[in-house]
Amino acid sequence: MAAVDPRLDLISKSIRVVPDFPKAGIQFQDVTTILLNPEAFQATTDLLVEHYRDQHIDVVAGFEARGLIFGAPLALALKVPFVPLRKPGKLPGTRSATVSVEYKTEYSVDKIEMHIGAVKEGQRVLLVDDLIATGGTLVAGAELVRKVGAIPVEAACVIELPELEGRSKLDGLPLFVLVEKAGI
Amino acid sequence: MAAVDPRLDLISKSIRVVPDFPKAGIQFQDVTTILLNPEAFQATTDLLVEHYRDQHIDVVAGFEARGLIFGAPLALALKVPFVPLRKPGKLPGTRSATVSVEYKTEYSVDKIEMHIGAVKEGQRVLLVDDLIATGGTLVAGAELVRKVGAIPVEAACVIELPELEGRSKLDGLPLFVLVEKAGI
Repeated sequence: MAAVDPRLDLISKSIRVVPDFPKAGIQFQDVTTILLNPEAFQATTDLLVEHYRDQHIDVVAGFEARGLIFGAPLALALKVPFVPLRKPGKLPGTRSATVSVEYKTEYSVDKIEMHIGAVKEGQRVLLVDDLIATGGTLVAGAELVRKVGAIPVEAACVIELPELEGRSKLDGLPLFVLVEKAGI
Repeated sequence: MAAVDPRLDLISKSIRVVPDFPKAGIQFQDVTTILLNPEAFQATTDLLVEHYRDQHIDVVAGFEARGLIFGAPLALALKVPFVPLRKPGKLPGTRSATVSVEYKTEYSVDKIEMHIGAVKEGQRVLLVDDLIATGGTLVAGAELVRKVGAIPVEAACVIELPELEGRSKLDGLPLFVLVEKAGI
């Protein structure tokens, strides 16, 4: 039996549960308390780097807002470009030079945008977010990447809420997560 | 005469100018093109780390959304907590456990929130954003930090738009920037 990496335990313990946010019945898994512990935050980055170091990732793409926090240090460590996937109207190339995809999340209908040219045809793109719930955001991100002719290689999240079964809705996109939590 | 650090030139050259965004007459300084160049992005982090390494920073606080991208790697490198300053309603502690400040930006009236408890009384806090325009965001961030009894030590931005004179409106908060650009 392989020993569990103690860093995973540190990360798991650093996550605060906020009941009934953003609506009644949701046990919100708050990653801001990971960020308050420099060792735990560094451990999330290190574990992702160790997993992706030899996977020929060309680009790390992070979802606004919390995916930016975990994606940016990972891109720096892998020495590859970082591409923010943002909410509508936020990217300065919005009027002429973005692609967008609409999607449903656990709580709402939303839309994300990416600069055209940020990801090039054929590049291998890693999608990063803090958490996978229903998987809608990740599916939309993969579709954005495919729209510009690139390859969504895998999605990486700090937390998975397994009972929402997002993993099974990713249309074949592999998923790597650090810890599992109860979301409801 | 001191030689100019070539990394500053690399960063400056990596910034894309998008005319008339988000409104007519604004020359938007787009930092997403820094992120596409791993050397340039690493240089922004390294230059900030070199500046703050010996300044006894207890906490790095980054403004949503682009301040998260530059603030998170800096906090990791300085081995201190990272605190996201977010738009209204985004922090899970919103209902009971945040402080907030309203402010005017170059384009709108906005509001930021911080979790109570994220920054402790007496801590020395570094505020990070991608860009200083009129300075409204940074002033609001400093006020948030003071509200919980902590000390806003300095603000760090990648880009300053000097003709908007934000620097003179910071009420004594010191400002460190990497490059100056024309914003209008």
